[in-house]
Amino acid sequence: MADLWSGRLPGGLDPAVRAFSASLAVDWRLAPYDIRGSLAHVAMLAHVGLLDPAEQAVLERGLRELLAEVDAGAAPWDPEAEDVHSAVEAELSRRVGPVAGKLHTGRSRNDQVALDLHLFVRDACDRTQAAVRGLVAALVDGAEAHRELLMPAYTHLQRAQPVTVAHWFLAYAWMFRRDATRLADARHRADFSPLGAGALAGSTLPLDPAFTAGALGFAGPYANSLDAVSDRDFAVEYVAAAALIMVHLSRLAEDLVLWNTREFGFIEIDDGWATGSSMMPQKKNPDVAELIRGRAGRVFGDLSALLTLLKGLPLSYNRDLQEDKPALFDAADTVLACLEAAAGLVRHIRWRPDALSRALSAELLATDDAERLVRQGIPFRDAHGRVAARFRDGGTEPADPEAVRGSVAARGGLGPAPAAVTGQIAALRDWLAHPL
Amino acid sequence: MADLWSGRLPGGLDPAVRAFSASLAVDWRLAPYDIRGSLAHVAMLAHVGLLDPAEQAVLERGLRELLAEVDAGAAPWDPEAEDVHSAVEAELSRRVGPVAGKLHTGRSRNDQVALDLHLFVRDACDRTQAAVRGLVAALVDGAEAHRELLMPAYTHLQRAQPVTVAHWFLAYAWMFRRDATRLADARHRADFSPLGAGALAGSTLPLDPAFTAGALGFAGPYANSLDAVSDRDFAVEYVAAAALIMVHLSRLAEDLVLWNTREFGFIEIDDGWATGSSMMPQKKNPDVAELIRGRAGRVFGDLSALLTLLKGLPLSYNRDLQEDKPALFDAADTVLACLEAAAGLVRHIRWRPDALSRALSAELLATDDAERLVRQGIPFRDAHGRVAARFRDGGTEPADPEAVRGSVAARGGLGPAPAAVTGQIAALRDWLAHPL
Amino acid sequence: MADLWSGRLPGGLDPAVRAFSASLAVDWRLAPYDIRGSLAHVAMLAHVGLLDPAEQAVLERGLRELLAEVDAGAAPWDPEAEDVHSAVEAELSRRVGPVAGKLHTGRSRNDQVALDLHLFVRDACDRTQAAVRGLVAALVDGAEAHRELLMPAYTHLQRAQPVTVAHWFLAYAWMFRRDATRLADARHRADFSPLGAGALAGSTLPLDPAFTAGALGFAGPYANSLDAVSDRDFAVEYVAAAALIMVHLSRLAEDLVLWNTREFGFIEIDDGWATGSSMMPQKKNPDVAELIRGRAGRVFGDLSALLTLLKGLPLSYNRDLQEDKPALFDAADTVLACLEAAAGLVRHIRWRPDALSRALSAELLATDDAERLVRQGIPFRDAHGRVAARFRDGGTEPADPEAVRGSVAARGGLGPAPAAVTGQIAALRDWLAHPL
Amino acid sequence: MADLWSGRLPGGLDPAVRAFSASLAVDWRLAPYDIRGSLAHVAMLAHVGLLDPAEQAVLERGLRELLAEVDAGAAPWDPEAEDVHSAVEAELSRRVGPVAGKLHTGRSRNDQVALDLHLFVRDACDRTQAAVRGLVAALVDGAEAHRELLMPAYTHLQRAQPVTVAHWFLAYAWMFRRDATRLADARHRADFSPLGAGALAGSTLPLDPAFTAGALGFAGPYANSLDAVSDRDFAVEYVAAAALIMVHLSRLAEDLVLWNTREFGFIEIDDGWATGSSMMPQKKNPDVAELIRGRAGRVFGDLSALLTLLKGLPLSYNRDLQEDKPALFDAADTVLACLEAAAGLVRHIRWRPDALSRALSAELLATDDAERLVRQGIPFRDAHGRVAARFRDGGTEPADPEAVRGSVAARGGLGPAPAAVTGQIAALRDWLAHPL
Repeated sequence: MADLWSGRLPGGLDPAVRAFSASLAVDWRLAPYDIRGSLAHVAMLAHVGLLDPAEQAVLERGLRELLAEVDAGAAPWDPEAEDVHSAVEAELSRRVGPVAGKLHTGRSRNDQVALDLHLFVRDACDRTQAAVRGLVAALVDGAEAHRELLMPAYTHLQRAQPVTVAHWFLAYAWMFRRDATRLADARHRADFSPLGAGALAGSTLPLDPAFTAGALGFAGPYANSLDAVSDRDFAVEYVAAAALIMVHLSRLAEDLVLWNTREFGFIEIDDGWATGSSMMPQKKNPDVAELIRGRAGRVFGDLSALLTLLKGLPLSYNRDLQEDKPALFDAADTVLACLEAAAGLVRHIRWRPDALSRALSAELLATDDAERLVRQGIPFRDAHGRVAARFRDGGTEPADPEAVRGSVAARGGLGPAPAAVTGQIAALRDWLAHPL
Repeated sequence: MADLWSGRLPGGLDPAVRAFSASLAVDWRLAPYDIRGSLAHVAMLAHVGLLDPAEQAVLERGLRELLAEVDAGAAPWDPEAEDVHSAVEAELSRRVGPVAGKLHTGRSRNDQVALDLHLFVRDACDRTQAAVRGLVAALVDGAEAHRELLMPAYTHLQRAQPVTVAHWFLAYAWMFRRDATRLADARHRADFSPLGAGALAGSTLPLDPAFTAGALGFAGPYANSLDAVSDRDFAVEYVAAAALIMVHLSRLAEDLVLWNTREFGFIEIDDGWATGSSMMPQKKNPDVAELIRGRAGRVFGDLSALLTLLKGLPLSYNRDLQEDKPALFDAADTVLACLEAAAGLVRHIRWRPDALSRALSAELLATDDAERLVRQGIPFRDAHGRVAARFRDGGTEPADPEAVRGSVAARGGLGPAPAAVTGQIAALRDWLAHPL
Repeated sequence: MADLWSGRLPGGLDPAVRAFSASLAVDWRLAPYDIRGSLAHVAMLAHVGLLDPAEQAVLERGLRELLAEVDAGAAPWDPEAEDVHSAVEAELSRRVGPVAGKLHTGRSRNDQVALDLHLFVRDACDRTQAAVRGLVAALVDGAEAHRELLMPAYTHLQRAQPVTVAHWFLAYAWMFRRDATRLADARHRADFSPLGAGALAGSTLPLDPAFTAGALGFAGPYANSLDAVSDRDFAVEYVAAAALIMVHLSRLAEDLVLWNTREFGFIEIDDGWATGSSMMPQKKNPDVAELIRGRAGRVFGDLSALLTLLKGLPLSYNRDLQEDKPALFDAADTVLACLEAAAGLVRHIRWRPDALSRALSAELLATDDAERLVRQGIPFRDAHGRVAARFRDGGTEPADPEAVRGSVAARGGLGPAPAAVTGQIAALRDWLAHPL
Repeated sequence: MADLWSGRLPGGLDPAVRAFSASLAVDWRLAPYDIRGSLAHVAMLAHVGLLDPAEQAVLERGLRELLAEVDAGAAPWDPEAEDVHSAVEAELSRRVGPVAGKLHTGRSRNDQVALDLHLFVRDACDRTQAAVRGLVAALVDGAEAHRELLMPAYTHLQRAQPVTVAHWFLAYAWMFRRDATRLADARHRADFSPLGAGALAGSTLPLDPAFTAGALGFAGPYANSLDAVSDRDFAVEYVAAAALIMVHLSRLAEDLVLWNTREFGFIEIDDGWATGSSMMPQKKNPDVAELIRGRAGRVFGDLSALLTLLKGLPLSYNRDLQEDKPALFDAADTVLACLEAAAGLVRHIRWRPDALSRALSAELLATDDAERLVRQGIPFRDAHGRVAARFRDGGTEPADPEAVRGSVAARGGLGPAPAAVTGQIAALRDWLAHPL
């Protein structure tokens, strides 16, 4: 096929340039969004009289046929096409003839790819939101099942105070709940249609941007064409939200790797969720958690790549923007896969009460001792000093189980007391029951 | 002064460790937040009966005295103190005596520093929001003043289609308006109080977290203590919003650097906003724009540092978190200074109509030509090809001024038509008139 | 096929985990390195008596057969295999029978994948080195062809002093020459073999690590097994070198984008190396330069991802390390493609003497004026002041061509004088003539 | 004082711009390098006859006086000066009179600051190199003292095979030894003088760049002036080397944090190298290790900031480059402090043989069992399967101490056998004895 701009540069691209600049291998996954956008564009062109009903019908039939093939998994019809937009227009042209030449009326690939990306990001927000909820559900189920199971909690990875396994589960649930609100906000800001911006400055044709925006379910069109074709904020914001999710996932993974060591021994991972060693016969490794942790850096790198890409770009569209896609797609794929893997992993661990119990050493109650003195009127700073002196050598002996249980029960509010935890679970269940 | 934990490790820190781990030089700027937080904490302790009214009065008087000194610019009272919290508690103790030992009741530096950071970020959101609005006002004023001034707009830094200077100004205004909503969302998510979390797991004392949250104007307390002391999402989200602002500022700066070249010549910077060369006598350089552009990388680096810091940290508090402050403070300082500098710069440029006019070459109307053929029923793809052939050699001759003006006027919707631009200005003025 | 560790976890992986953890799609490109490494390992095992000659012959024949298929472009024989190592071992087993079970003697996938990566990085260094030299050759050729062509040089994108196009070309040539030395150093540090480290702690079998190191052309084996399996410094260092190359390429690209604007107009890009617009018929865009510039962020992101991945990993091997490959491969592919594209682009631009000449304004000689006063004994600071006063309004009129030529000729040393430039060219040609 | 370019823009800077653009607070630490560079420049100007001996003497006396004050810790003489270069020139002028106006002959702040940075980086390489060697010495001493002390080594944080504490120490020593070679290479590439480049294009005055390069101990001058003033490769390369050092430090810190938990319990940190909690009386936390780990992200951020800063900057000098200093200085300060803290920490831990011994469980010998079968002629893959079956439930019982000792002794080469470790120690001691 001829390039869309072959009228201007009829000699054609040098093959080396074609290979270097082609984006089809990456942007083909935008095809369903691209075609849906074209369907809305066709409807708008007909609405404003730039297409007659017969033309509209032909174009819509052709596009629907292409969409069906794409949804069924079609590979690019012409692998030599410059990009997904060219591939779709060329194939449409092959199938429906010259009327396909009217598809690009009042539209540029600049606003078209921006549209495709908005549709992709909106979808990615929704899918990530669903995966976040799936993980929160797994965490809340874990909390519910272990309301009374005591464990030491740590600061500086040193034993600090006793909590319950439920409280630990819920700490993560709240992180992901915040992520869900970030995704919702990101989706809201992504919910504007760039169509009507044309290449960068609109069109002299009587387009109706509100029509296409409405047809595609957007809150409305952009206000400014230069902004519309060069804005990638929505992609950055989604990837930034994904990066924070990866922070949370990596912390959860770190805890699970630690709990799963021989030395902590708090959990056992189901055999189907662990792997072994090619050389050491005895090994059973927590690979899923390690992979999740390792993939965090990948999404941070995607974010860094996107920001760097955009820095200092003059208005409006520049070809540099083609490079937004590898980072965006990689971040979306990674965070989704990791969220699902984490939910699975959380459902495939078993807690080992014996090991947890052995870890409940007397030192965990030192703060309670100091607070007991406070209730007797001693200033906390003095109480701290007195109790501290007793712990200079020791505290590793087992704590009295009832004292531990009492300590946990006494710490309500933000703390691990079962009653407070019940409130946390109820609040999260309520949120899960209602779509944001 | 003794360290707050000297009861446990009475030998004291090795001087090398003290020098390596001290954070006072960095976190002293949290002092006003720290003391305000302590005032709320004291009120709560009195409210729940852990302080009697006399103790409350003494502590409040002491804290208010310290706050007044800090607000007046005091340096740390004891430069050897470990951190801002220690410095405040020690000085309070020196002034009000042993009752100061009751201040830290039911509180840890872990929830205390988290509180200080929340207050800092809430403030930073507000100050950044105000600076964003100041810049949008400058941009909208610029647009208003140049509604009819024509300029070429660019894609790939090649002349594309004519717009107005107003439309160019507004493209940036919309970017920053989005930033304002991101800051508002970030502030909302930062608006929770970690007090009551204690070191990581609450307290056996009858604290009232809702009381302190209310006293400090928060929407409420955190739900989970482990989350409350280890969460730095709010700092990351603010810095991510700052990074996007820097993206926008760097693009604006890049455009201004370009417009200010001899070759473009679209603008002249006021002498007081430019600098010269120590060696080349003729130079007048756009340093403010360059510095803004250059500082973008700094904020991206801060974001990268924060994410890396948090990745894979086990629950709950770890000392690594001390390193959140340099990145957070640097990002806030940088983005604020750059927003203000950009607003100033925008108000200190003069547009050069002659240069703009010379840049309005005929090629800018090629798309209009193709769209004219479309209105005659020719498919756009064919129209494009026909017009393109005419532009293989040329288009650099001046365009007809009336044709350019007509072209701009014909492109409403998202485009630069003065009527559409008036709508953009009105919408932005309306937003500026109402606090978010 | 069974996983290599199915004796330990006979139930098999949960399909979700298999999908999440499989690396074959990414690491299959290591197959040629993997098989070459296995051939060296087999030779070593025979050398130390762990294989008899017949076993050696069978294994070598099988491996050579696999290698030939891989070199011819074979896809993974078993797409369900866990990774490239498993895929190779399983297929070898299918072809040569139980003796394949001896291949993994004294070896783990941990040292095996480290070996594969070393071989990959060594190759990548060589290929990148060659591409750097190709670009330097193009730049030096460009310099040679434009020794006398005058152009303004810029600081702050403001006209500063006159140079030649040759001098501009050579500024970039020197950057890439430094890159070549960085690649050479990186290759040198990558040139150690991890074989013999086993899983992390060597082997009780009488292996000969120096034998395999020698067979694969390494400078020698690692000294410490824990280091050998967990070290990824060589990958980071290569990607860091690639990132600096991308910095240089992005600056070259930026200059070319600027020179190619209507406003500068210094160069014309050959039609086959530019693309057009789908909407604006007149456009001819410098996409190759823009894509190079845009891809810089990608490699920076890869570097950031790798560093983040490695931060805080406990010794020794952790599954997180699987994630080194996407970043490493992407960086290598990107930098290679961009170096080649840049060399092509440099060879497909034509300089426009008229435009260059028009840009030689009088202001470019202001420094010469001040230096003339210096030669008369006036302190430079005074001379600067006197000349500066003359340039407060103006300097944009054309300079005297002979004066410009004289100015350039007078600035030898590091400057653009043709004689000095001839020396630069000779030095670079000399370097190109001798492999580093 | 007047700005150096006040002849061109006599109205002076707007105060807001002065505050925004001033760099003195950051770049004052370059003062000693700046003055040393000026001394070399003065000597060169005299050498080529641009200063007479009397002028030279006056300038040198003045500069030496300033240098002495700076070396003694002077604050900027004029805190309102634009930058360190202006501050020095103005103060010199105040002291020696009009002849100071000759100092800037044939020089620009562009090559001057590049020179200062080269001198800084050369020094930073040397200081970092020394700190790396100090840490390697501490690690080798630790190895020497624990040649026979057995410990489990880990992959995936699961017990893998037994090694010695010495072998663990040496794994880190080798990482830092590689860092030392990277620093040496970076120093070598930084060892060129930009003086003679002037603002960007040399000078018409008869400067002698080789003279100044020699006087300052450089290998030579740059070859190309445009490159000389815009090159920051040497800063990036140093920061990249620092980032890899931080990776190694963060891994060491992670191991120490883990070994120091109650659950592992392998080490005890000296009281003076640990801190406590403000709330929990029993706590003794490994803060030094955590801070080292946390600061890794900071240096990665600095690297990211520098790369982003440089990306896409047109030739030659741009004011953006001012922003190289915060990142460079922060990276140097951080890596130096962390190297020294790590060396101190390594010398302030005590190993706990009982805990190490308890961790030597039978599973650590599973690989030996499989290798025993291999020596009996069984293919490794079969041997692995047979042994693996035995470890499906168990292996946590204590191993036979003699068997563990025998296992370690049997793994020479890259492994932990004391004889091999002795060789590692000797090689490292030999390196420490000879400056690189």
